[in-house]
Parts: sequence; structure tokens; C-alpha cells
Amino acid sequence: MKVSVVMGSISDRKVVEKAVNILKCFGVEVDFRVISAHRTPLEAIEYAQKAEQEGIELIVAAAGKAAHLAGVIAGVTPLPVIGLPIKSSTMDGLDSLLSVVQMPMGVPVATVAIDGGENAGLLAVQILSVKYPELREKFTKYKEHLKVEVEGMNRELEG
Amino acid sequence: MKVSVVMGSISDRKVVEKAVNILKCFGVEVDFRVISAHRTPLEAIEYAQKAEQEGIELIVAAAGKAAHLAGVIAGVTPLPVIGLPIKSSTMDGLDSLLSVVQMPMGVPVATVAIDGGENAGLLAVQILSVKYPELREKFTKYKEHLKVEVEGMNRELEG
Amino acid sequence: MKVSVVMGSISDRKVVEKAVNILKCFGVEVDFRVISAHRTPLEAIEYAQKAEQEGIELIVAAAGKAAHLAGVIAGVTPLPVIGLPIKSSTMDGLDSLLSVVQMPMGVPVATVAIDGGENAGLLAVQILSVKYPELREKFTKYKEHLKVEVEGMNRELEG
Amino acid sequence: MKVSVVMGSISDRKVVEKAVNILKCFGVEVDFRVISAHRTPLEAIEYAQKAEQEGIELIVAAAGKAAHLAGVIAGVTPLPVIGLPIKSSTMDGLDSLLSVVQMPMGVPVATVAIDGGENAGLLAVQILSVKYPELREKFTKYKEHLKVEVEGMNRELEG
Amino acid sequence: MKVSVVMGSISDRKVVEKAVNILKCFGVEVDFRVISAHRTPLEAIEYAQKAEQEGIELIVAAAGKAAHLAGVIAGVTPLPVIGLPIKSSTMDGLDSLLSVVQMPMGVPVATVAIDGGENAGLLAVQILSVKYPELREKFTKYKEHLKVEVEGMNRELEG
Amino acid sequence: MKVSVVMGSISDRKVVEKAVNILKCFGVEVDFRVISAHRTPLEAIEYAQKAEQEGIELIVAAAGKAAHLAGVIAGVTPLPVIGLPIKSSTMDGLDSLLSVVQMPMGVPVATVAIDGGENAGLLAVQILSVKYPELREKFTKYKEHLKVEVEGMNRELEG
Amino acid sequence: MKVSVVMGSISDRKVVEKAVNILKCFGVEVDFRVISAHRTPLEAIEYAQKAEQEGIELIVAAAGKAAHLAGVIAGVTPLPVIGLPIKSSTMDGLDSLLSVVQMPMGVPVATVAIDGGENAGLLAVQILSVKYPELREKFTKYKEHLKVEVEGMNRELEG
Amino acid sequence: MKVSVVMGSISDRKVVEKAVNILKCFGVEVDFRVISAHRTPLEAIEYAQKAEQEGIELIVAAAGKAAHLAGVIAGVTPLPVIGLPIKSSTMDGLDSLLSVVQMPMGVPVATVAIDGGENAGLLAVQILSVKYPELREKFTKYKEHLKVEVEGMNRELEG
Repeated sequence: MKVSVVMGSISDRKVVEKAVNILKCFGVEVDFRVISAHRTPLEAIEYAQKAEQEGIELIVAAAGKAAHLAGVIAGVTPLPVIGLPIKSSTMDGLDSLLSVVQMPMGVPVATVAIDGGENAGLLAVQILSVKYPELREKFTKYKEHLKVEVEGMNRELEG
Repeated sequence: MKVSVVMGSISDRKVVEKAVNILKCFGVEVDFRVISAHRTPLEAIEYAQKAEQEGIELIVAAAGKAAHLAGVIAGVTPLPVIGLPIKSSTMDGLDSLLSVVQMPMGVPVATVAIDGGENAGLLAVQILSVKYPELREKFTKYKEHLKVEVEGMNRELEG
Repeated sequence: MKVSVVMGSISDRKVVEKAVNILKCFGVEVDFRVISAHRTPLEAIEYAQKAEQEGIELIVAAAGKAAHLAGVIAGVTPLPVIGLPIKSSTMDGLDSLLSVVQMPMGVPVATVAIDGGENAGLLAVQILSVKYPELREKFTKYKEHLKVEVEGMNRELEG
Repeated sequence: MKVSVVMGSISDRKVVEKAVNILKCFGVEVDFRVISAHRTPLEAIEYAQKAEQEGIELIVAAAGKAAHLAGVIAGVTPLPVIGLPIKSSTMDGLDSLLSVVQMPMGVPVATVAIDGGENAGLLAVQILSVKYPELREKFTKYKEHLKVEVEGMNRELEG
Repeated sequence: MKVSVVMGSISDRKVVEKAVNILKCFGVEVDFRVISAHRTPLEAIEYAQKAEQEGIELIVAAAGKAAHLAGVIAGVTPLPVIGLPIKSSTMDGLDSLLSVVQMPMGVPVATVAIDGGENAGLLAVQILSVKYPELREKFTKYKEHLKVEVEGMNRELEG
Repeated sequence: MKVSVVMGSISDRKVVEKAVNILKCFGVEVDFRVISAHRTPLEAIEYAQKAEQEGIELIVAAAGKAAHLAGVIAGVTPLPVIGLPIKSSTMDGLDSLLSVVQMPMGVPVATVAIDGGENAGLLAVQILSVKYPELREKFTKYKEHLKVEVEGMNRELEG
Repeated sequence: MKVSVVMGSISDRKVVEKAVNILKCFGVEVDFRVISAHRTPLEAIEYAQKAEQEGIELIVAAAGKAAHLAGVIAGVTPLPVIGLPIKSSTMDGLDSLLSVVQMPMGVPVATVAIDGGENAGLLAVQILSVKYPELREKFTKYKEHLKVEVEGMNRELEG
Repeated sequence: MKVSVVMGSISDRKVVEKAVNILKCFGVEVDFRVISAHRTPLEAIEYAQKAEQEGIELIVAAAGKAAHLAGVIAGVTPLPVIGLPIKSSTMDGLDSLLSVVQMPMGVPVATVAIDGGENAGLLAVQILSVKYPELREKFTKYKEHLKVEVEGMNRELEG
């Protein structure tokens, strides 16, 4: 099990590492790097083209502002692409969200919430678990853990 | 290969059937029905709970306005859930989009564009193709077809 | 007189406790807890289903981002449901507001302002006072107090 | 059981009559009229002031654009006020929604969806049913009817 | 020359005092006070009704969120009303702006920029200067001063 | 009494003539013409510069999209300037509104609602009536007429 | 003088041909074609890479929704790139605008108004006229023609 | 090679100097100053009118809020005008962006991202490089440098 997590700039690192950490916790190998649709477009294209044959099963792409990275990658690979919109210093994340999610017919990007690093990782796990039963099992346990978390919140509230 | 496509109201049918048609074209069996997070919440929950054991591998959920269907389903199943926001008569689809995509940590929904029926179907195909090589093959051909379509547009432009 | 105040996460506590405090000031018993439409959906449904028979007369539900809690609860109980949208770190509260207020036909949620904790409590009091004359009396006094507050502001301005 | 349904202009009639019809179906007496916060402010104030003593138990106020009617009425009556934002020819209903829902501390308005005429009526029924068990019973049946409606949609889909 | 400057809450003071200061600099008498369309609606109405006969020539009304103050006042007085939308803690001022500016036909409010305290004062001066030539003269000088200010900026830039 | 009504393009005519008609009904002389901040900037500047000495007492400026006309005119004349934002084919009027109302410190524009032609005319009347008692009298009667209009709506509703 | 005008889909043709027509009127040779950042990404990249050596001096790129075409092209060519956002069936053009204009540091796109086909062409002419004096001359005449157009509007208004 | 960089206020300096610095790095002479469309409109017009004959080849205009500077300048000069929208204290930059980019037919402004100082400078370089091969060469090297930057980010990520 191997996925790729790419981001448009190292300034997105704090949010994107949450996706990487989730994936590693679930035992998924991660190729984590900076690739820019605008500053290194050829590298982005080439990376996306080779991903499938190098054993990558899914790509998470994070970017902010006019966030084209996920869409460009989705254009050249048949692998599922998860788009993670990053909030920048203006427009409160709306520009990133619309640039990632509003893809034209034929080239979908599976978009998660603005700055939703963990959810990008979890969605990757859910998609892989269509194929890998051991991931499904772990994810089902993770969902149990969410309930326990809420129970803990209620104890905190009462205490 | 079997997926579920659910929508909050029959008024969403025109958009959602595009997803169903795409899936059928790719040879994926589809369970297509109306389930409402608000009008039939227990049925929605029960349906989502049983989906995995009934062989459903992925759920596409379409809804408009305060579009909770995808999120509610994602809360009870470990299957990947694709959210399809439907534009209604006010707010130009923004309410639907934000209600579907802005999921809290722990429960992602793979969101596609507003009214992006075809893309919901195609994303489902891409996710299943992680497991089924024959779908990957078909999807790769589909991508070729997109290029041919653009070539046709250019002939139309020239002619 | 007993109402329920539920919130999607303990991180919403600061805003939601304002509703709880208002209710307690008016002598209304409050069942205050964390319930998540996404992390504990079955518990949310079950809680909402039992509320009426356990003597709850009204439910206040607070949540942020894709805020489905109020809508999901409104789907399973005939009790009036007040929705309190919480501002999160992106989108300035617009996502929460639209997710709470834009409910489809058949399942209304009585929505108050973004982060309007006090107003959620006050609206609960107003609704209960349809039945309980002593609450109506207290609320009428509260409205007098709002005027006194404005008078105090004017003295501060002059002084 | 008597409620008041007021609207800012007769041009809002088509949406607002849906609330009136719902209320009449549930056997609630309705005082339906045009009152403008801007064109007849004194009448609006006087009407709201007298409502309680004239046996009105709740007020539904509908308006568009800078929709102040619900807020102004809520300022002078202790009765619960339901705000129904009406979409006008610009801004797609966002102006109406924000003008109705974003009330300051102390004076809540129970806001429903933009153009949500039926839901304004249904919320009124739910609020009154806190006091009147026969309304609760009817509303519980109404919720059953919503499920039947969804079943009908599914038959339509299959057929 | 006398104008009234009213605001919905003392928390708006910092922005609104800029209008008051501008007016005093131009030698205009100011009646400055807190009046709330929601907490003291009758006082607001009464104040607006009496304004003309008490020699007030224009009213500046500042409020935030669902900012109804200017509109309500404009409903009861024939005097020109300037609306000053105040940014609150959510929605970045958009709710205030739309609530003030989007007035229905028949009852205009002369709206200035969000948090535009000085401009509310200056617009009041411009309106009064239709009648008072000495204000026109002072305002014309003020406009000269704006140019000098820009010249100062250019010296700062060069220096 | 003479005011100027200018618009950025003849395509705005339908909305802007409502302002002109209101003004003529109130007996105000109107200089009505097309002037563009972008296509005829020098003419716009010159027109605004001469307005005061030619007896114009107020300028209404209507424009759509990046609506600069009102702001540019306000920059060169001490006369009060009313800005009328016109909705164009994209952005539902939001671009026009923000371009007109969000003026920087020092140069206010008295903005009315998007496409609020009548209100632009009425606000002009209110401003002139600070100086002309006969206009004040007429405007006060006009406000009475608004009430009669609402009475007529109520008769229509009842009949 | 040769420029390239590319669009993401033939459905954008109506708007984009306005740019083409403007350019041809000014005597600029145009290479007009459909190229998609998502459906034919390699072709898009290759086209943009070769543009400079094939004598193209500037590229106009039009696209709607998550409009990545201009940004992707700008990533691979040193030529100036004009971005023309196209309004699609949802979000009123805001998604296209933000996807085109909010480019990250290092890779600008010269963005014009939503659906601003003519302006995309005119901006191309202005940019080329930095080099070609004959275009500058023609453009200066075009600006004169804009004034004449306004004069015509005024005659229409008077007549 | 000489360009003009103007801004509406010295408070925009921090963002705008990034454009100036980029231009100087590329060896372009810059005339940098404060000019306001609202406070010094005649100076703005005069400056823009003379620019061409004084050897200016392009104008960068930065402004915030109702940002008219770029549009007004574009109205009087045939030179290409780059618009740089500056984020102010309200509306998160949306007002500035729409005021700059949504220009009417006939008068385009080449708009860059909100607060995109560097990109305004780089776009100016790209436009000039249509004429000056040495700038094209430098810009092509700059693009190489962007790739190196990304490589550095990847080393940082790995290290």
C-alpha cells in the first residue's frame, strides 16, 4: 500500500503533515513531496504520469489560492486524486476550495474540507480499504475511537 | 462490483442519474434510491449500516441546500462516501457545497463539483479501480476518449 | 421545564455554555452534552428519539462547519429544534450558518445568529413561555432589562 | 390556537401563503396581513405590541432584501418570532437571510431557510405543540407522511 | 446646524466617534447616543419621530450584524438617514452592509463603507452643505487637505 | 432645485430612469446623461468639476460591475454624490455594490440598494429637502402614500 | 504579430470569439483552439512550451469553474498569459474568477472580468502595442471611438 | 525600460514595494508614487495622460476597498495597466478584487491576485519582455529559479 502526498509549497506543510501522519498510523507507505502545478508543471505532470507504474495507488494533492495542483494531476493519471484546499492569507479559503472542487466534467477531484489535513488522510485510507481488508478493519476501529473521544468530552463536561 | 447511489429527493434525479449512467456504462451494479437524512433519517442510518455487509463497496450521496445526507451516511459506514452537492433555487449551490465538503475531523466526504453528476460516477469508478484492474483499464480508455472529444471540438471550430 | 442542549464537539463549549447559562437563569432544567452527527450518529438519533418521552420539551443543537447536528435531530423528533451555528477556523461561519438554516421542506430548524449562544437560550425560553406563563413573565422582565442596559450605555457615553 | 403571519409586501405572498396553508391544515387560526417595518413602522410596532393580549401565541414575519420586519417585531413582543427570509431580484437571498438571522444578543429570531414558506409554518406548529398535545400528535403524523412521500419517490424511481 | 448620531450598542463607539469628531470639527452640533432597534425599539421610533421638530436635520445610524437601526429610523422620519455598517465578529461586515444598504423601495438609507466612521461624518457635512454655504466652503478646503495629505505621503516615500 | 443623474452606459437606463422619474415627480430639474468613468473619464471629471457652479446641488451616479463612476465624481466635487449600483450579468450585483460603497476615508458615496433606482431618486429628494421645505412637505406626503399602499395590499389580501 | 487564444471547452466559444474578433480587427493573427488543462493536459503543456519558438507573443486562456488552463500555461511559458474566467451554471462566475486570478507568487496571470471576452482581446492588443507602434495608434483611436459611442448614447437618451 | 507603480495610499506600501523590488531586480526603471483616484483625481488623470509621452511603457496601480485607481488610469492611457488589489480591514480583499477586475467592456485592467505584489512586478516584466529580449531571457531564468526553490523545499522536507 503506497500513496503519494504532494503539496504546492512547503508553507502548506503544517496542514498536510496531518494527512501524512494519519496514513503512516494506518501503515500506509507515503511518498511526501513538494510539487507545484505552476512552478514545476513538467515535474508535476511527469510525477503524476509515472505514479501508477511506480505502485502509487492514490494521490493526495494540497494547494492554496488558485489551487490547480490536484486538478492538473487528475488530468494525467487514472488514479483517484484527493484534493486538500489550503486556506491562505486572503479569501478565507474560498478561493482554494472552489479551485479544487469545481472540476469540469470528466476529471473529478475528491475534495475534503479547507485545511482538512486529517480528513484527506482518512479518505485515502477509506479508498484503499476498498481493496485492503486490513485497512477496513483498522478504519472501523478508528470510527469506534471517535465515539470514545466523544465519551471523553462528556466526562470532561460533567467533571 | 456494486455501489449505492442515494439522493435526498426525487427532484435531484436529473443530475444524479448522470452518475448512475456513468457507473452502468462501466459495468458497475448500482443500487439507486431516494433516502433523506431529514425525512427518513432512520432508514438512512440503517441503509448505511447494512451497506458494507450487503456487498456495497462505495456510496454516492447527493443532496441540496443544507445537504446532510453524505455526512450522515459517512458517520455510520466505513465505506468511502462521495458527496454530490445539488444546486437548489437559492444561494447558487454554495449552501449545498459547504454542507457537503466542510466535514469535521474524522468523517471525510469525497466531494465533487456542484451538480457534477458525471464526476460523482467517474470518481466512484476511479476508487473501485484501485481494486478492480478491469475498471482501471476502462477508465484509462475513458481518459483517451476525453482527448478525442477535444479533437472533435477543434474540428468543429475549424470547420 | 426541561430542555436539551447538545453540541458537536467540546471545542464549541465556550459559545454553547452561554445558552445553558441563560436557560438556568430562567429556571429551566438543562441536559447538556456532546453528541456528534458524524462521530456518534447512532447516539444522536437515539438521544433525539427518546427526548420527547423523557420530558425534554425542546432541543438546542450547536455545531460548526458542515453543521448537521440540528438537522439530523430535527429529522427524528417532533420537538422544536433550535440550531446554533458555530464559527470555525475557515469561512467565517458562513458554512455553519448555511448548513443549519437551509433545511429542506418538512424539517425546519429554528436558526439563530452565528455564535449566538445567548440568543439560542433566549429563543428556547420564548418558545417554552408559550406554555409556561411564569417564563413569559420572566422574559418580559428580561426585555425591560435590555432597555436598562441601553440607558446604562448612554450614561457611560455622557459621563 | 392563533398565530400571526405578516409579510413586508404583497409581492412575498406566493412564498408566505405556504406557511399560512400549513397552519390552517393543522387547524391553527391565522391572522395574515401585510405590515412593513419601513413603510408602516408604527403599525408594525403597534401590531406587535398588542399581539400577546389579543391571543396571538407566535408571529411569523417574512421579508426580503434588508429584511428588518422579524427583528423589529421581536424587539417589542415577548412572543417567539419566526423569520422567513424572502429571495429578491439581487443577491440570491443572502441579504435577506443575513438581515433576519444575524440578530444581536437579547433579541433572537427563529430563522428558517430562504423562501422556506412551508417550514415557517411547520416550525410554528412545532412550537405551539409544546403547549398543545393535539398539535404534537398531528405533527408526528405529518412526519410519518414525509416517510411515505419518500417511499412514493422510490416507487416512481423504480417504475 | 444639528445632527443626530445614534448607534446600536456602546461597543460600536470606537468607529462611530470618528463620525462625531468629524462633525464637531466642522462646527456641527451632534446629539450622540445609543438607541437600539431591537432592545429599545419604542425609544428608537419616538426619537426618530421627534427629530425633525427638535431641529435635527439629518440622522447618522450605526449598527452591526442584522443592522436594522438605520432602516427603522428611516421608516419614521422624512430626514435623510446615513447608515454606517459596523463589522462584528463574524461574516467580516457583509451582514451589516447588506442589512443597511439593501433597503426596499420607498425608504432609502444613504450607506457608507463598513466601519467608515469618518465618511459617515463627512457625508453628513456634504448633505448639510447643500443648505449651509459655510459648510460647503469648509468641505472644499477639506478636500484640498486630502491632496496635501497625498503630497505628504509622496515625501515620505521619497525620503 | 437641480440635480444631475449620470449613468455609465445606456444599458443601465431602465433602472436609472426610475430615479429621474421620481425626481421629476417631486418637481426637481434633472440633468440626465451618460458619462463613463472609463470610456469618457475626462468628460466625467470636467462635468463633476463644473456641476457646483452650474447650479447642480447633488449628483446621482449609477454604474455596474467595477462601478467607479460615483467614486470618481465624488473625488472632484464637494456636492453630495449618491451611488446607485447596477446588477450586471455576473456576480449578482455584489461587484457593483462593493465598488460603489467601499469608498476610502475622505471621499464618501451615499450608496443605495442594488438596482434601487427609485430609492436613489428619493434619497436625492430627502437631501434637497434639508434646504427646501416644500420638498420636505411633499416627501412627508409621499411617506403617507407608502402607508396607503400597504393598506391597499391588505385589501387585496382580504378580497 | 501573432497571439494564441485557447479555451477549455467549445461551450466557451461564444464569449471567447469576442476576443478573437477584437484581435483580428486590430490585424493580429490568432491561433484559436480548444485545449484543456484537465482533458488534454499534455497537449496543453506542449502547446505552451512551443508557443514562444513558434512566434506566439502572448496567450489568452479562457476557462470556467475550476479554471486551471491559464495558470497551467503560465507555468510553462515565459510569455504573458491573459486569463479570461467564464461563468458556468453555478456560482455565478466566482469560482472561475478566483481560480484564474488568485495565482501564487511567481506565476502571474493577467486576469480580466468574468465573461469579458472583448477586454481579453483589447488587453492583448495593449500588451502587444508596447512593441508595435501601429497597434498603439489603432488602440488610441479605439479609445476615441469609445467616447463617440457614449456621445451616441447621449443622443439616444435625448431623442 | 520604464514603468510606473502607483498606489492609492502609503498604507499599501508594504505590498506594493514587492512589485517595485521585482522590477528593479530585473533592471527596469520605476517611477513609484502615491496617487489617489479619490483624493487626487486630477493628478491621477494628468499623470496617466502624460505617462506615454514621458516614456512610461506600462502602469501598475494598487488600491484597496472600492479600488478605482487602476480603472481610472486605464480610462485615460493606452498603456497596459496592471491592477493590484490590496486587502483592507473588511471583506477579506473581495471588494478590492471585484473593483479592480470587473472592468466594463472597452477598458481592461490586467488584474493579479489580492496582495500579489511580486506577481504585479513579474507580470510587468513579462509584458515588457514582449519588446525587450533581454528581459525575456532574465524572466526565463527566473522561472528556472522557481524550480530550484521547489527542489530546496524538498530537501528541507527530507532533511
